[in-house]
Amino acid sequence: MRIRLAQMEVHPGHPRENTARMIAQIATARQAGIELIAFPEMAIPGYIIGDEWERHAFLRECERCGGRLREQSHGIVVVFGNVAMDWRRRNEDGRVRKYNAMFVAEAGHFTGPRSGPYPYVIKTLLPNYREFDDSRHFCDLRKLALEEHRPLSELIAPVPLRHAILGGLLCEDAWDMDYSVSPLQILAETDADFFLNISASPFTFNKNHKRNRVFSAQAAKLHRPLLYVNQVGIQNNGKTVFSFDGLSCVYDSLGGHRECKPAFAEAVLDIDLPVGKPLRLPGPLALREDAIGTMSEALLYGTRKFLELCRVERVVVGISGGVDSAVVAALYRRLLPPENLLLVNMPSRHNSQTTRTLALDLARRLECMVAEIPIEDSVALTRRQIDGLEIHRADGSQSRTLSLGDLAMENVQARDRSSRILAALASAFGGVFTCNANKSELTVGYTTLYGDLGGYLANIADLWKMEVYAIATHLNERVFGRIAIPPGVMSLTPSAELSPAQNVDEGKGDPLIYPYHDHLFRSWVERWDRAAPEDILGWYLDGNLEEQLGYAGRVRDLFPTPAAFIADLERWWNQYQGMGVAKRIQAPPVLALKKRAFGFDHRESQMGPTYTEHYEELKAKTLGN
Amino acid sequence: MRIRLAQMEVHPGHPRENTARMIAQIATARQAGIELIAFPEMAIPGYIIGDEWERHAFLRECERCGGRLREQSHGIVVVFGNVAMDWRRRNEDGRVRKYNAMFVAEAGHFTGPRSGPYPYVIKTLLPNYREFDDSRHFCDLRKLALEEHRPLSELIAPVPLRHAILGGLLCEDAWDMDYSVSPLQILAETDADFFLNISASPFTFNKNHKRNRVFSAQAAKLHRPLLYVNQVGIQNNGKTVFSFDGLSCVYDSLGGHRECKPAFAEAVLDIDLPVGKPLRLPGPLALREDAIGTMSEALLYGTRKFLELCRVERVVVGISGGVDSAVVAALYRRLLPPENLLLVNMPSRHNSQTTRTLALDLARRLECMVAEIPIEDSVALTRRQIDGLEIHRADGSQSRTLSLGDLAMENVQARDRSSRILAALASAFGGVFTCNANKSELTVGYTTLYGDLGGYLANIADLWKMEVYAIATHLNERVFGRIAIPPGVMSLTPSAELSPAQNVDEGKGDPLIYPYHDHLFRSWVERWDRAAPEDILGWYLDGNLEEQLGYAGRVRDLFPTPAAFIADLERWWNQYQGMGVAKRIQAPPVLALKKRAFGFDHRESQMGPTYTEHYEELKAKTLGN
Repeated sequence: MRIRLAQMEVHPGHPRENTARMIAQIATARQAGIELIAFPEMAIPGYIIGDEWERHAFLRECERCGGRLREQSHGIVVVFGNVAMDWRRRNEDGRVRKYNAMFVAEAGHFTGPRSGPYPYVIKTLLPNYREFDDSRHFCDLRKLALEEHRPLSELIAPVPLRHAILGGLLCEDAWDMDYSVSPLQILAETDADFFLNISASPFTFNKNHKRNRVFSAQAAKLHRPLLYVNQVGIQNNGKTVFSFDGLSCVYDSLGGHRECKPAFAEAVLDIDLPVGKPLRLPGPLALREDAIGTMSEALLYGTRKFLELCRVERVVVGISGGVDSAVVAALYRRLLPPENLLLVNMPSRHNSQTTRTLALDLARRLECMVAEIPIEDSVALTRRQIDGLEIHRADGSQSRTLSLGDLAMENVQARDRSSRILAALASAFGGVFTCNANKSELTVGYTTLYGDLGGYLANIADLWKMEVYAIATHLNERVFGRIAIPPGVMSLTPSAELSPAQNVDEGKGDPLIYPYHDHLFRSWVERWDRAAPEDILGWYLDGNLEEQLGYAGRVRDLFPTPAAFIADLERWWNQYQGMGVAKRIQAPPVLALKKRAFGFDHRESQMGPTYTEHYEELKAKTLGN
Repeated sequence: MRIRLAQMEVHPGHPRENTARMIAQIATARQAGIELIAFPEMAIPGYIIGDEWERHAFLRECERCGGRLREQSHGIVVVFGNVAMDWRRRNEDGRVRKYNAMFVAEAGHFTGPRSGPYPYVIKTLLPNYREFDDSRHFCDLRKLALEEHRPLSELIAPVPLRHAILGGLLCEDAWDMDYSVSPLQILAETDADFFLNISASPFTFNKNHKRNRVFSAQAAKLHRPLLYVNQVGIQNNGKTVFSFDGLSCVYDSLGGHRECKPAFAEAVLDIDLPVGKPLRLPGPLALREDAIGTMSEALLYGTRKFLELCRVERVVVGISGGVDSAVVAALYRRLLPPENLLLVNMPSRHNSQTTRTLALDLARRLECMVAEIPIEDSVALTRRQIDGLEIHRADGSQSRTLSLGDLAMENVQARDRSSRILAALASAFGGVFTCNANKSELTVGYTTLYGDLGGYLANIADLWKMEVYAIATHLNERVFGRIAIPPGVMSLTPSAELSPAQNVDEGKGDPLIYPYHDHLFRSWVERWDRAAPEDILGWYLDGNLEEQLGYAGRVRDLFPTPAAFIADLERWWNQYQGMGVAKRIQAPPVLALKKRAFGFDHRESQMGPTYTEHYEELKAKTLGN
């Protein structure tokens, strides 16, 4: 059986557009002698679409589009993901019954599992973690089995086609290690000739490696081939933007596999499936991917697709001379013609000649548009208007003179740059401006709201500072193949340059200690069992903090005393759980690259910082109180 | 049996603090001869705490606190909600097994349901809609029953106490109308003497009325009393702030009930429960609550608690002379001493004497601090720096002259007010500044990012413009009992006053048509089956749009032709699904008052506006294309 996996770009929320492109692909496949074409999970509606699932007009549109695809299934079997409606039943939220389903159309008809109540395959395992909330909108097969008073194993059945028997799975159905039921195991005991997993699996660094391991082991165990087709494109749930890398794949009955290349692009993978005989593919498992290369590819892809989504063609990047804005500028330079990228340096009295020169050097090397707009006059005006201002009660009974302190003036500068200059400049340039915050800064809110935290997208906000440096080097060495980011940018002391205390020429800068704080913050945010101060202090006292954090240095070299260590820990923990949260609520969308990007994959509440009793005990013991 | 319902304020994320207050309450109750004290669901950890459920240190702390409460159960039965841990099992996300549980402690021991595997009552129905995501973190009793290969009805059993048999329920367990199982029905078939529902049920306008209807019907059907204890306080999941109004209640066996008053306050409700005999309470069901009064109470309570949460004591409100900022100012005036509230008017050349006078009149009537800070100089400076600016490529090969258009200059003014003046002023004043956007503006993004959309909290952003007017009137008539908000504010044409086209003295203002657009937008956002353009246009053509929207006027009076109607519909739908989403992503937290507050209760993705095929057909037919 000649099968085509159609790794397609899905435009979430635009069913007709997706369907039109699928119809064109079906026609092409039919002409090429393909007997079965498979599209990804939720190929018609898109997968991450917020609560748009609650709009009946949208649901009816998706249903209608599904019918159009059914009509195309003459001479070719068409498999695709769509929302399946049962308008007579309700979900547990009282809304109309919806399933996340795989439709199999042959000769103008939908064919469902042999023993199921519906003519489509229903997703059994609905992920409800990280950014996923399938169970918010869809009824799963387990609930249906309870409702129908039938054993689940009866409802999980293969789909009989004319020339083969298909074991249908949707994404999570094959990631069953933590569930008490295994759809794949149930299907394995049937006469399915092959297994087809249609997925909408967002890119997460290192996930492909894991999937190849898991899926090829499964195919080998089942002694039957497993086909996997995934989306490309981007989808977001507001705060967090996810890219889809495709990497659709065929796993043969012996555990070998063949990938659909390239990643992050529409492509097809054709396979001749010997029905009733084992499939053998050449080649071993791919080696672990090039870490920084994949990260850089995901960054460029996600940013490019987000520009397309927002229909943005021109971008303004505020460049400070530091590495974060340099990396952002360089990334956009790969995506835009030089005349559509404007770099702007906005010096105040605190900016050194060093960074101003570096900023201009960057613009020269990136060969794009550049401007220098000082903020001195405006900052002085704000100071004049507010510092020393006398406010009073309307009846004159009380008055008070206001003053702007040093920290306040730092924030005035940051806001002046973004909300006054960059926003107006972007408007005049006919585009948007970027947020250049990294994950280290975002974690502890070392950033000014309406200042450097403003922007239409924070595309490097899922990268720790050290990862930003690594991307900078990679961009020079591999992507540009030349010095695009000046070396001075990378050797510079990281500094906001908002006060004399942050003079880079004197080696003074940010209060963050790199890379130690990267590792510390990562343990709070990205570590599987997210660490809290009691864990950190416990490891410190046990002498294995460096090992736990994966930090190559020695923590005792950074903090001469336990008191200093604890003061630092609490300072940043307070920021992470305090102002950090408040700032992230108003932060721009973050491009997700790894597990636990801020936003929908790292949900949080403003609650104020909290310490456990065990922590307090450890601390008291340590400080000898 | 003498029972006390302890309607307590829960501080989410702070288990020790909550536990200490519960211990104090237990001691008081014991002294008062109470035999059973009941605290709300998740009284120890809090209910809406984001992904903090993934931090083991936090979970251990909650467990430890539960143990402390157990120790207090000598001479009194102590019932409370907490997370229950089974460290040996896993949830389906691979994380440690957690249940949302009711603990019943008697004589120093926890007692569970007769036939359950654990010494606590596990929540059966986990809500997974609106702001709820219980199933993201907790394993429910249905999944446990499947895992244990036991019928669910066997696991739902009453808790035997020495002097009575308790039927335990957690919140959603009693809201079973859309579920295929009813824990209450199963419990009804047991020998339970009474039912106790511990809840963490956020305030939603009109929900209490519904609960009283549902719960008293249930108690009457069961012929046994139903006790309900709910939290007070606020909890948030970042974007959306929910208040809890308490209103704990006893429903007697005949359907009568008695409420714990007041709402939105810590209180206790004592009840003598005749074991084995019916309970009779005097009085009929309360009448439907005073709509605007409840709304106003919820606004004041939520705002006050959010101030406390953020430890904010001073507030700056930018006042335009319009109704939104006047209502916000008046609300804060109820919560702060006069010297801690600063109202500031920030005129530009486009602001009329009318609004400037109204703003000052408001400040006079609210008797608080006031200032007037013009933005003219700064706006002129921004124009000088950017309008006409020549940008060029670093090698001089290309150049371009930028210009700031009219709309751009409007946004420059709005950002100047918020990000330059208000932010600096708040900092100098030692406080925060507010966001005064209403729900109508927020829906269609009729607001400037980093401008009037900035602020620490958007407390009226769940109110349509007409509701803001109603609150204004209510504040004058009932809350202040005098003219606090000048009548001129309410009769003024709503206008942003950012250009000559918005001259209020000439009756020119915002492009929004009140109250029609309020009703239109509400159908997109708050209506149960959320409307889309195809619904709206369909109703328009059927002549029943007014009825569907609840709009008292005639739509044909607003739009002379179908083409004009369609142009308006599409203009605002494009804004709602387009820039509106992008702006809401960076909006401040919204205080929720009703169903579908923006943020976590109305989840959305940036996808660009979309229209169904059916809409296109209707439109073509209407326009005669």
